[in-house]
Amino acid sequence: MAKNFKNDAITSRDENFAQWYTDICRKAELMDYSNVKGFIIYLPYGFAMWEQIKNFMDKRFKETGHSNVYMPMLIPESLLQKEKDHVEGFAPECAVVTRGGTNELEDPLIIRPTSETLFSELYAKQVKSYRDLPKLYNQWCSVVRWEKTTRPFLRGSEFLWQEGHTVHATEEEAREETLRMRDIYVETCRDLLAIPLITGRKTEKEKFAGAEETYTIEALMHDGKVLQSGTSHYFGQGFAKAFDIKFLDKDNKQKYIYQTSWGASTRLLGAIIMVHGDDNGLVLPPRVAPTQVVIVPIQSQKPGVLDKAYEVKAQLEKAGIRVSVDDSDKSPGFKFAEAEMKGIPVRIELGPRDIEAGHCVVAKRNDGTKTTVDLNDDLANTVLKTMDIIHEEMYAKAEEHLRTHITETNDYSQFGEILDTKGGYIKTNWCGDQACELKVKEDYQATSRCYEPDEASDDAVCPCCGKKAKHIIYYARAY
Amino acid sequence: MAKNFKNDAITSRDENFAQWYTDICRKAELMDYSNVKGFIIYLPYGFAMWEQIKNFMDKRFKETGHSNVYMPMLIPESLLQKEKDHVEGFAPECAVVTRGGTNELEDPLIIRPTSETLFSELYAKQVKSYRDLPKLYNQWCSVVRWEKTTRPFLRGSEFLWQEGHTVHATEEEAREETLRMRDIYVETCRDLLAIPLITGRKTEKEKFAGAEETYTIEALMHDGKVLQSGTSHYFGQGFAKAFDIKFLDKDNKQKYIYQTSWGASTRLLGAIIMVHGDDNGLVLPPRVAPTQVVIVPIQSQKPGVLDKAYEVKAQLEKAGIRVSVDDSDKSPGFKFAEAEMKGIPVRIELGPRDIEAGHCVVAKRNDGTKTTVDLNDDLANTVLKTMDIIHEEMYAKAEEHLRTHITETNDYSQFGEILDTKGGYIKTNWCGDQACELKVKEDYQATSRCYEPDEASDDAVCPCCGKKAKHIIYYARAY
Repeated sequence: MAKNFKNDAITSRDENFAQWYTDICRKAELMDYSNVKGFIIYLPYGFAMWEQIKNFMDKRFKETGHSNVYMPMLIPESLLQKEKDHVEGFAPECAVVTRGGTNELEDPLIIRPTSETLFSELYAKQVKSYRDLPKLYNQWCSVVRWEKTTRPFLRGSEFLWQEGHTVHATEEEAREETLRMRDIYVETCRDLLAIPLITGRKTEKEKFAGAEETYTIEALMHDGKVLQSGTSHYFGQGFAKAFDIKFLDKDNKQKYIYQTSWGASTRLLGAIIMVHGDDNGLVLPPRVAPTQVVIVPIQSQKPGVLDKAYEVKAQLEKAGIRVSVDDSDKSPGFKFAEAEMKGIPVRIELGPRDIEAGHCVVAKRNDGTKTTVDLNDDLANTVLKTMDIIHEEMYAKAEEHLRTHITETNDYSQFGEILDTKGGYIKTNWCGDQACELKVKEDYQATSRCYEPDEASDDAVCPCCGKKAKHIIYYARAY
Repeated sequence: MAKNFKNDAITSRDENFAQWYTDICRKAELMDYSNVKGFIIYLPYGFAMWEQIKNFMDKRFKETGHSNVYMPMLIPESLLQKEKDHVEGFAPECAVVTRGGTNELEDPLIIRPTSETLFSELYAKQVKSYRDLPKLYNQWCSVVRWEKTTRPFLRGSEFLWQEGHTVHATEEEAREETLRMRDIYVETCRDLLAIPLITGRKTEKEKFAGAEETYTIEALMHDGKVLQSGTSHYFGQGFAKAFDIKFLDKDNKQKYIYQTSWGASTRLLGAIIMVHGDDNGLVLPPRVAPTQVVIVPIQSQKPGVLDKAYEVKAQLEKAGIRVSVDDSDKSPGFKFAEAEMKGIPVRIELGPRDIEAGHCVVAKRNDGTKTTVDLNDDLANTVLKTMDIIHEEMYAKAEEHLRTHITETNDYSQFGEILDTKGGYIKTNWCGDQACELKVKEDYQATSRCYEPDEASDDAVCPCCGKKAKHIIYYARAY
């Protein structure tokens, strides 16, 4: 039964990765399409994963001194135009409100594609003295960017995210903040999502519109393509000067503030799917799983079976585990396959014979292994430990995949074959010229993902142009 | 010192209630204005109150079987037009997107004023069989309604809210759901916000566009005006028929579903301010207060004072209390006044002499009383108990205000004087004709807030027209 359900349900991952991805999004009931292109519906199961991510990150933001606020959804077109680089980056993607109520608007309003301009305007009002600094605000909201090609969670005309915006008295503090928030993204991926990363700086070409520096976290998907999964920007004083955000410092001088912003979005749901999923469906890291344990009663019509299932549920819930009993009238095989499709980390099988013998079967979604475990007071602890093991195993597997898909080479003629056959990252040297980045993109459809400044060895040369190299850089094909 | 801060800070409540309200919104740093009329900025302190409300309600929604989803922000104009009454209600208030990226849109898109149409469209796809029912979805988001006159939290062109949307197999179930969610709003007001309510049905004239029945919760403000604070709607099969939401029932017949929706918004922040606030600022019920306790060290430069303050903070935090130490370089009097403006329920004063004597002073914001409390292991419990007492006292005070501002009368000539002098509700009889409602509005600028069907006594007559009365109705002037 389970087999049939599986095979009918989704395309094989290696046969057609894109179709496999879409199949999981739909069959695991993560999302649905709406009638407006690029605008998706986050269904309960997908949204519950986002709630877990949100709770995890929000706690860390608050622990590091940030407060949540909510800024208007609409930005006057004239305001968006105040920072030159910023508006050039976003203008082509804007959704524009031209009518409000019964009136045509004189100054059209843009649905926020991001809120740097609004935060800058607010900070210009709020910040007068060094005593007002730093200001550390964050907001959870959706943003709209008119995209031509869209895919669930990966690229949409509307997506959910958080955007943090901070202003500081000194460059040093602002730079520390930029890295601190990048590190919280790394931590979220590692400790919640079991996703290892490459991190570094974006090149001039790839950085955020208006930023002086952009730090990125890049995750490697199963198909060898890469997903930018969060960014943290150091703005220097660009917005400060455009919006006149000044303060009176301790030395009695008027100074411009230093600014950052940082964002992570529902793209992370795409990362979870494509890093961990398999041909049977989603495979969820336990800490982000909306349901961590499903109890499947076997021969549930036999007396005592369902009661025992509910008893075990209560026991696990008491230990803080998110658990459900599948007491529907479907067959156990069908239930197994459904739980696999949804990626539920732990399945507990419980039949009359198990109950008689005083045990149950604990099956791990990530590797399919089954263990017989005693039905006693220690069960919840065993399950908690099992979930930690699953997390570690999933992280280790993803890390191994990442490690074996970073190819170090300085031989430009090899780039195409590496990208075509195994994918992943090419780690190489870079002279620092944008021309070489563009050449890689032109020749191999790969983009620079990030670089480490000044890390190239003394005798290193850029594989594209042969000139002296300055940096280590990672190229990859990306979503 | 404190006195000066107070008097300078805000207008007296009885002198100019509207100005007093705006002063609190600004001086307690709850919100700021943006450059787009009717769109406000929720600052950290205001947003933190909303987060408390959200957490409380979200927990109750989940306990009663609801799941969160997220629907697109934009609705095709053509979709909004599918339910006739609904579109007539909302069309004049819509913000319309006519440009996306570089293109003019063929079908303009409306920023959601509410999402009945989107949920109906989704449910029409999802629901096939009685097995798929009920569907119990909720979303937290912001909505846009183009308002001419706006006031912070009370009426804005954008506001934050939750909107629940459910579909059911039977009328009975849907009606139960409508009341269940109304009751959760009542519970939220009573147990979290210390706000007593009048609840009942909205008349035909006042009910939600497209609803068969609307239940409302109405809160009485200090100035005698009333604030509609949440509504729960029973739709019957109106949307079901417009959107063709049908299911195959157990009896093998195709049937239309029965539908509900229910919403509560950041208006509740306005209710908290206007029910509880006084001439010194906000007065927050402890359970919704972002900071429940502020510790003000007296002579904090003296050795040991700040250390003790942090020690007490740690002790209270351990008991789950939200507590801060005001260790700024302001004077104690200034700190007191600030804590009062922000409505922090409990203030702990702690000076060298207190520490020597082994006690501290605990002051209650709601009535200004001070108690000397021992600095020992029991302090956290004392504070927790004090907060419960504050909650009860605040509720009782608001309830007394409500009780004394419901005037029962059947003498139409008295309406004006009652409304002009003491305000509050006029509880009276109603024949059921809209003409009488309109007459009250015309004559006295009061609207029907809610009514109880079929509760008028046998010999009761409508005070407006003298015809036989059917219902008990509440009239009031409202925000």
